[in-house]
Amino acid sequence: RKSLTIGLIPADGIGKEVIPAARTAIEAVGSDLPPTRFVDLIAGFETFTRTGVALPDETVESLQKECDSALFGSVSSPSKKVVGYSSPIVALRKKLDLYANVRPVLSVSPSPDQPSAVDMVVVRENTECLYIKQEQQTLGEHGKEARATRLITERASTRIGQMAFELAQARARKHLTIIHKSNVLSVTDGLFRESVRAVHEKYPDVTVAEQLVDSAVYRLFREPQIYDVMVAPNLYGDILSDAAAALVGSLGVVPSVNAGDNFVMGEPVHGSAPDIVGQEIANPIASIRSAALMLRHLGYNKGADRIDSAVDAVVREGQLLTPDLGGKAKTSEVVNAIVKRI
Amino acid sequence: RKSLTIGLIPADGIGKEVIPAARTAIEAVGSDLPPTRFVDLIAGFETFTRTGVALPDETVESLQKECDSALFGSVSSPSKKVVGYSSPIVALRKKLDLYANVRPVLSVSPSPDQPSAVDMVVVRENTECLYIKQEQQTLGEHGKEARATRLITERASTRIGQMAFELAQARARKHLTIIHKSNVLSVTDGLFRESVRAVHEKYPDVTVAEQLVDSAVYRLFREPQIYDVMVAPNLYGDILSDAAAALVGSLGVVPSVNAGDNFVMGEPVHGSAPDIVGQEIANPIASIRSAALMLRHLGYNKGADRIDSAVDAVVREGQLLTPDLGGKAKTSEVVNAIVKRI
Ligand SMILES: CC(C)[C@H](C(=O)O)[C@@H](O)C(=O)O
Ligand SMILES: CC(C)[C@H](C(=O)O)[C@@H](O)C(=O)O
Repeated sequence: RKSLTIGLIPADGIGKEVIPAARTAIEAVGSDLPPTRFVDLIAGFETFTRTGVALPDETVESLQKECDSALFGSVSSPSKKVVGYSSPIVALRKKLDLYANVRPVLSVSPSPDQPSAVDMVVVRENTECLYIKQEQQTLGEHGKEARATRLITERASTRIGQMAFELAQARARKHLTIIHKSNVLSVTDGLFRESVRAVHEKYPDVTVAEQLVDSAVYRLFREPQIYDVMVAPNLYGDILSDAAAALVGSLGVVPSVNAGDNFVMGEPVHGSAPDIVGQEIANPIASIRSAALMLRHLGYNKGADRIDSAVDAVVREGQLLTPDLGGKAKTSEVVNAIVKRI
Repeated sequence: RKSLTIGLIPADGIGKEVIPAARTAIEAVGSDLPPTRFVDLIAGFETFTRTGVALPDETVESLQKECDSALFGSVSSPSKKVVGYSSPIVALRKKLDLYANVRPVLSVSPSPDQPSAVDMVVVRENTECLYIKQEQQTLGEHGKEARATRLITERASTRIGQMAFELAQARARKHLTIIHKSNVLSVTDGLFRESVRAVHEKYPDVTVAEQLVDSAVYRLFREPQIYDVMVAPNLYGDILSDAAAALVGSLGVVPSVNAGDNFVMGEPVHGSAPDIVGQEIANPIASIRSAALMLRHLGYNKGADRIDSAVDAVVREGQLLTPDLGGKAKTSEVVNAIVKRI
């Protein structure tokens, strides 16, 4: 790649505060990246309120035609049902076929000589399950009835399985836990489990375990050390990654990428946090780490390492942390401290 | 009621060890209950392996015709897909229209002068959502495709809402949190949310909040004290109640009832725990508390109080606890200690 074009979609709430922070971090990497250009793009509930469309065509086109990757902030959910509104992040994942949502969850303060207490990766299928949003409402004998379709395909389960085994193989413990609920959903989750298992023969070094989603959440809190890589259908992965984030102190530090075969989009796992908007106290770490993760997926390991090490150092020093981590620093102070160390 | 007939369905694994314990506790209540008769019934994976049927018709008929209530143990899930097998507990909930799964989660060691650190009730809809088990598999262009239907009706959401408001109103804090994921499932979870909210006007003393299921699990671990009563569609309720159980030290102490308008069935929240079967170390408390909860729903508050107080005393003394609570006692020693105090 002779140059790198990154789309920036801050979307709503604190997304507008943390995506600029991630940009600053990438800029600080300088010569370890090819000449980098940023494209400002819009999407979100605010965009919907202003324009009637949550995900404008121009945004999708720019991502498809001129960008190599992107960073997405966070979207606000309407507090009442709003006709015509539909989550732009869910739509983007599908339109760009970003089939894997990779969410590494790591204790915030890994000291260099001590292994991290929590160190796992949630690999979430990102295009199907209940997220296909095929829903209908009808009027039955006893009132309204609503139905949604949950789709699980062999193809999507196989490719997310592939990605999960690949990630597990590259890690020290090489252990994969398949999450499902096939004691109830024997056909759909049965297919998920069986398709992921079928990939195992290509990765004989990886050990495999299984957990029902309910007991997986229970054990996540009781014995987080049993997990290394977890692979899950979309909705379970959504819940599990938030649950795992609770273990490491704050959603404000958990990054993710939405990855497809030809595109990668970084995204902090946290939401738009309307309650703290404008106070300059949003934790920029999740977005900055998402930028690093995005760079890593693009093959720029050196740039990614520089960002991650700078974040590690700032967290370890513990002098400049936002309130969610027990500190008093402003977003910009944390960003400056990180940038200085990049 | 001149007499009380209770069906006992230990089902699989440690169910066979803890359901007899619950029976012993009920028997100890003696004259605070009408003359009580127990009926031994079978169901489960073991029953399936032996007879080809997981839930025999005779079991259902006995429950419907001669029993006033029941206690169910736990079922083992096959580790591979088994043709013809389907979870008997899910079937029972539906056949007996036990539409509410009520799961109180309380810190294990409530001292009499200190309020409990965790004190919440998960009210889980018990008959629909993905648990209707309408699933099909087809062969598509890219391989197998499986679909499941998620059903949410106004009727079921309204009656579970009613039950949740009723429970919230009877508690000190009178607070209800509605769990959903209507930012993705705007039609189905939209209907759930709206139907539960519609019940609010009948319970003006109760305050209402909402949470998306992913952040509900996150906040459950970070700030459990924000919850009093939670009401959720079936699958979210399944996950949330296991998550809440992790907060109080062990699934081995969390009871539940499956309640309908005409029948109530107690059930420990834990599973069949094949790894500890036969070691005599299964914690009987979840089942004994399920028996108390069942008696309470039948209107026998005095009997229920006597059982709960006996359990509280044994837990507080801390001398006779099973390994899951850090003790060394056998199941039977815990049961004896509780029975002595009833
Ligand atoms: C905002 C919402 C649609 C989204 C999801 O459910 O995927 C979010 O919770 C996430 O985890 O990225
Ligand atoms: C055994 C299983 C079908 C069941 C459920 O999912 O309801 C269990 O997890 C529970 O919570 O009672």
